[in-house]
Amino acid sequence: MSRILIQNVDALTLDEQNRVLKSTNIAIDDKHIVAVGDAPAPRNFVADEIIDGRNHVAMPAFYNAHSHVPMSLQRGWAEDLPFDRWLNERIWVAESALTEEDVYWGAALAACEMIRNGVVAFADHYFWMDQVARVVDEAGMKALLAWCIFGLGAEHEVGGATLERTEEFVRHWQNAGDGRIKTTLGPHSPYACSPQFLKRVVDSAHKLGVGIHLHVAESQEQVDRSMREHGKSPVAHLNALGAFDVPTIAAHCIYLSDEDIAILAEKHVNVPHCPKTYLKLAMGIARVPDMLAAGINVALGCDGPASNNTIDVLESARIATLVQKEARHDPEALPVMQVLKLATQNGAREMGFGDSGVLKPGARADIILFHFDQPHLIPRHDLAANIVHSARANDIDYVIADGQVLLRKRELTTLDEDKILRQAERRAFRLVGQELRQVREYNC
Amino acid sequence: MSRILIQNVDALTLDEQNRVLKSTNIAIDDKHIVAVGDAPAPRNFVADEIIDGRNHVAMPAFYNAHSHVPMSLQRGWAEDLPFDRWLNERIWVAESALTEEDVYWGAALAACEMIRNGVVAFADHYFWMDQVARVVDEAGMKALLAWCIFGLGAEHEVGGATLERTEEFVRHWQNAGDGRIKTTLGPHSPYACSPQFLKRVVDSAHKLGVGIHLHVAESQEQVDRSMREHGKSPVAHLNALGAFDVPTIAAHCIYLSDEDIAILAEKHVNVPHCPKTYLKLAMGIARVPDMLAAGINVALGCDGPASNNTIDVLESARIATLVQKEARHDPEALPVMQVLKLATQNGAREMGFGDSGVLKPGARADIILFHFDQPHLIPRHDLAANIVHSARANDIDYVIADGQVLLRKRELTTLDEDKILRQAERRAFRLVGQELRQVREYNC
Repeated sequence: MSRILIQNVDALTLDEQNRVLKSTNIAIDDKHIVAVGDAPAPRNFVADEIIDGRNHVAMPAFYNAHSHVPMSLQRGWAEDLPFDRWLNERIWVAESALTEEDVYWGAALAACEMIRNGVVAFADHYFWMDQVARVVDEAGMKALLAWCIFGLGAEHEVGGATLERTEEFVRHWQNAGDGRIKTTLGPHSPYACSPQFLKRVVDSAHKLGVGIHLHVAESQEQVDRSMREHGKSPVAHLNALGAFDVPTIAAHCIYLSDEDIAILAEKHVNVPHCPKTYLKLAMGIARVPDMLAAGINVALGCDGPASNNTIDVLESARIATLVQKEARHDPEALPVMQVLKLATQNGAREMGFGDSGVLKPGARADIILFHFDQPHLIPRHDLAANIVHSARANDIDYVIADGQVLLRKRELTTLDEDKILRQAERRAFRLVGQELRQVREYNC
Repeated sequence: MSRILIQNVDALTLDEQNRVLKSTNIAIDDKHIVAVGDAPAPRNFVADEIIDGRNHVAMPAFYNAHSHVPMSLQRGWAEDLPFDRWLNERIWVAESALTEEDVYWGAALAACEMIRNGVVAFADHYFWMDQVARVVDEAGMKALLAWCIFGLGAEHEVGGATLERTEEFVRHWQNAGDGRIKTTLGPHSPYACSPQFLKRVVDSAHKLGVGIHLHVAESQEQVDRSMREHGKSPVAHLNALGAFDVPTIAAHCIYLSDEDIAILAEKHVNVPHCPKTYLKLAMGIARVPDMLAAGINVALGCDGPASNNTIDVLESARIATLVQKEARHDPEALPVMQVLKLATQNGAREMGFGDSGVLKPGARADIILFHFDQPHLIPRHDLAANIVHSARANDIDYVIADGQVLLRKRELTTLDEDKILRQAERRAFRLVGQELRQVREYNC
């Protein structure tokens, strides 16, 4: 139980009125915001910590709605390659040597990065997820974790996962860490899981009372193959299997028909959008404004650092709005306040941390403070635009998650960063192999 | 005259072999690099300053190839608007109140930002350019400056410019600041200047021995209008007027035919590419790989902060490569080493600072150092990819221009940053008017 008072701070509330408050105060009691405004403190509120918010802008912390964070070990390891070579010559090669300990240190490296980037929660999908859960617990972050499983045959099994093993993972970690850790099942995708296997997963999710998190409609080829094999689009196929009758995270959804969008909206499916990966691997442009218009909960994800290279939701927000403006030929598409909501409260809603992503009394105290007294953030005509289009994640000085300060004056409070950087880099080099670690040759 | 030794630094040389050196040394004598390598120091080299390069990566400094930097005062002042409202309701309104002193402080704010972003030189195109030249001189930066002139009629005159006035500017400032300041003439564009006026400008450029810098083919409408009015594309029209017989900077060139590309290549026209503005205002995707394949010198620009919101060449490089990969459906398009050359040596070539943009003996000492011992830059599988896809401009600790340290341990050495931030913000608020300065209402 600690009480924090942030004084004299400008604030983007991201509330229903999109209020922007100048030189205000925010009071936090234990895990929740208890007051926002000029006379914030409830009677008898005595702060344990006072944060000077002058020249800073507060806003709700970022939520990373789809990721594979232990792939931080493969950051920069598969550059400027077509997708098949990216996957077969790089990612699979490195992951074939992956150990549980690698996953721990990769997730720890990612946790350092995420906290510095103002990201307090993430929806992860990878292997050896026990290790990721350990990191979340130690870091004071929040997460919705899925252990990735493949269901086409034994040759696809990676990372030691079977459905039974991941059910055990769910039972062990669900609501651990004082409720900061939640779980789902993680079938990879409709193309890497048979209909029979997906039905088993859905039955299991009902039984366990959790959702599922999988990859959907990442390419036109996937859609074409689904039509050939099942007579339905990936979305319609999953719907027919009952996959959307539990809370579902359908990552990517780049290639959607109007009918697909109607299904996703009707079934309240969450769609994490990861635009940096889509550009880097030339995967296409998702129909974000159409999904939002249909009422779908679209949130922002950073995918894996082997394709996205950062775990930076702010950067993804900037790319998302820029790309949609160009793709729709509409400079008004995905305006700054809307994209900030995708980056915060929509992610919280997806992950089941629904009382987060807004600065108001009663909301979870997930708050970040940007240091604004810097040339690239002056003048302050429009605080929200300056964050979306000019700020960088390393302008963030303070990060608070569930009322706990995880970054104070740019120092991590919960993790041993020096040790993690050394361990993670050593393991990353081992993973890709000495003979492959040479400086790559460039032709341009 | 000072001598600097950077020790134990990893280095992207951006030389012809794209060599990446681990734990090397760089020796600087006055304005030039005199040695790069393990045994760097010429006999009798005694450094006045030794920079510890451990855990840092050195590379050539960035060049901003097209900008309107005093528009930093309008950063965030025209958001999520279609182009005509952006221009007529916002930009023109603010610029109608613009004074010489505003330009000085806007440029000074931009200089603080650029130095922090590792940008040592810029090709600017705006009004009251005497003031921008003063800032360049004081900041220790380099620039190629053009005073913008319109040539359709008196009603278009802005910022006090006539051709005669800008000729006087050229004569006064050309090669000032120990050669750090160069000038061109700055006719706005073929659509804002009559053929007769453009011919006068070209004649004047020949007489003065300088080039011209203008905006070309920013929209399909401009191309269509040029075809209607002149029977030629903007590029062919300018070529017929002799505009490419002097060194020319043709900013943007988004809408080009194959014939246009052939003309630009044959006439050695420089094309600054500003992708963040193009996305934000939904202007289209330029044919960068085609221009490069034709041998055109494409460089990277940050345009004005009213549309681009930052003066950050690294961010523009990231956006450039991501967008081209998607637009060409080719993840191999514009690879990291190539886009870093656009961001450095191609800009230097455009601006006539041709011996810059590479780390080798004899090159100008324009060098930046990234602090790499941070979670988002670990592991170091690929230093170039980590810079292009993961680093942020505020990871830069040191900036050296012409052998002078402009940023040392993240402190500006030549400018009074606190004073500039206060002056610039005060003027920015005055410029847009009290009644307009209210927090804008958001609808999302």
